[in-house]
Amino acid sequence: MAGKGSRVNAQRSVTEQRRENRREEILRAAQALFLRKGYSNTSLDDIARAVGIKREGLYYYYPNRPQILIEIIKPLGLQLRDRVREIHASDIPADEKMRLTVENHLMRFENRYAESQITLRDDYFSENEDVLAEMRPIWDDYERLWVEIIEEGQEKGIFDKSLDPRIAHLGILGLCNWAARWYEPGGTLPVPELIEMYNKMVLRSLGVQQP
Amino acid sequence: MAGKGSRVNAQRSVTEQRRENRREEILRAAQALFLRKGYSNTSLDDIARAVGIKREGLYYYYPNRPQILIEIIKPLGLQLRDRVREIHASDIPADEKMRLTVENHLMRFENRYAESQITLRDDYFSENEDVLAEMRPIWDDYERLWVEIIEEGQEKGIFDKSLDPRIAHLGILGLCNWAARWYEPGGTLPVPELIEMYNKMVLRSLGVQQP
Repeated sequence: MAGKGSRVNAQRSVTEQRRENRREEILRAAQALFLRKGYSNTSLDDIARAVGIKREGLYYYYPNRPQILIEIIKPLGLQLRDRVREIHASDIPADEKMRLTVENHLMRFENRYAESQITLRDDYFSENEDVLAEMRPIWDDYERLWVEIIEEGQEKGIFDKSLDPRIAHLGILGLCNWAARWYEPGGTLPVPELIEMYNKMVLRSLGVQQP
Repeated sequence: MAGKGSRVNAQRSVTEQRRENRREEILRAAQALFLRKGYSNTSLDDIARAVGIKREGLYYYYPNRPQILIEIIKPLGLQLRDRVREIHASDIPADEKMRLTVENHLMRFENRYAESQITLRDDYFSENEDVLAEMRPIWDDYERLWVEIIEEGQEKGIFDKSLDPRIAHLGILGLCNWAARWYEPGGTLPVPELIEMYNKMVLRSLGVQQP
């Protein structure tokens, strides 16, 4: 009986493994299409065609297009938030926290360029409540940490108290996120140089003297 | 003969006027739909339905959807560029030029909110060469003026010379443009207050001391 049981288990695990591989393949194909054409211009048919299966076959792996998008962009959202949670909780001055927060935020263009691009585009914002319901709590958490770091710096007298911390953080996010529109990976500007320059601008904008 | 001629002209002019009014009506309906659903989620059928005509009837006024988008966003693009051209050519210090440039750029959220939102979304960037071919020369002109104002400030020793002027201008544009994602017209933050705060951040980021 043990023998038969493990044969069944082995069988199931091979099937599971195949399904997992196919899911990965679908995600990679969808990511490439979303990056090139945009989410709103990519149909489930396009994705099915790219992996050589029928649209109906796709439903065995993913129930719908929003779910595929969520699987692509959620890991990056969680990673960004978890790292800033650590920075936020650490025992360093607020200007150093902001520096690390900007660095962490911009490194996405080096480490996870495709997911960053897809996340930061707004072509999936309209009439896509499934995706926003899943992602908004993560983004809200993330942005609250940015605001709290600015508030901490203001309380400690490191940052300019006259700035509204929420509006300031949105400006800084915009300064960083706009890179999704123009940054070319593998071009003449390495991400670490971008981080150095933008950190200088960001810290100055908050009222911290920079060399 | 003269009498007959002017009757024909008057007739033509009434027809022309009706066509013009209908074109305006279509533009207004399209603008409202693009703002609410996004360009990529709005079909010509949606627009025709909103003005109570058939899709085929729409072709009498506009040949296609890209042309409608261009008519909505081009006037704002030209207005922004022409004003910065004046600022750029004027005889004031570079930091004052930058202050006016940022003000001009952000006033769009007060004066032309819908067109700004629609322009700054990226949902029409993919596979829409007609629109980009029409708009890119205007945007390129506009951004070149920003870069030249930063370069002028660097040459005059007003702005930090260590910043790459192109990358700096992209950061500042991002800081401003991100407002399209979060700014609520008629909310608690009037645009002039936003301008004051962001100008403080922008000028500081370029190395100009601000009170």
